[in-house]
Amino acid sequence: MKNVEHIGIAVKNFSEANGLYFKLLGVEPYKTEFVESENVNTSFFRVGGTKIELLEGTTPDSAISKFIEKRGEGIHHIAFEVEDIYKEMERLKSEGFTLLNEQPKKGADNKLVCFVHPKSANGVLVELTQEIR
Amino acid sequence: MKNVEHIGIAVKNFSEANGLYFKLLGVEPYKTEFVESENVNTSFFRVGGTKIELLEGTTPDSAISKFIEKRGEGIHHIAFEVEDIYKEMERLKSEGFTLLNEQPKKGADNKLVCFVHPKSANGVLVELTQEIR
Repeated sequence: MKNVEHIGIAVKNFSEANGLYFKLLGVEPYKTEFVESENVNTSFFRVGGTKIELLEGTTPDSAISKFIEKRGEGIHHIAFEVEDIYKEMERLKSEGFTLLNEQPKKGADNKLVCFVHPKSANGVLVELTQEIR
Repeated sequence: MKNVEHIGIAVKNFSEANGLYFKLLGVEPYKTEFVESENVNTSFFRVGGTKIELLEGTTPDSAISKFIEKRGEGIHHIAFEVEDIYKEMERLKSEGFTLLNEQPKKGADNKLVCFVHPKSANGVLVELTQEIR
């Protein structure tokens, strides 16, 4: 794990939350992106060497909408940047962690991503992320 | 906000969680510390330019024990490093954020800290933190 690439926060109202996090962090999002495969709107704020990602579900069956329905708004996941996502997935499986996807999938912000089950990591949804080169 | 200084994770069993995060992150905690004023055991793992902090309540009335009782284990807060905590507290108050303490208090790892109410920030408990110089 090289770095905390970003922290994902589930929000109900994307434009309100973007305004609020602009006030909180003192910077505008450098990017907003609709991820069709996940039915989420995303925005990214740079804070030092890491990023805050806001996530809004655009359909009721999006993972983000379901998360909010169950737990309310709040921190959704931590994403760790890795050098080689395939190797890291193998390493974690051999250590006994449960992965939520068997193959890396395409995430926001030009990344390959894989999630580790929160039950494997004290209730924390961990994302592995590798830049697509 | 200069940087994400650390991400705090509430855990039930400190020694088990330390072992698990060692496997996940591939590094040992560089420090463990008992914070008497908060009744918590803490450990810190360095990941790139930020840190993962594990928190275990040592009494049932510790904020961490109460958090776990209500929401289960998981991500508890995001701490942002600031240059001048007094100035940043004033700035956030003037922007309409609710602070959980009126004065900075002494936290783990030689820091002054102040918390922002999760209701102010889409369910996220935000910590401001400044190194005690």
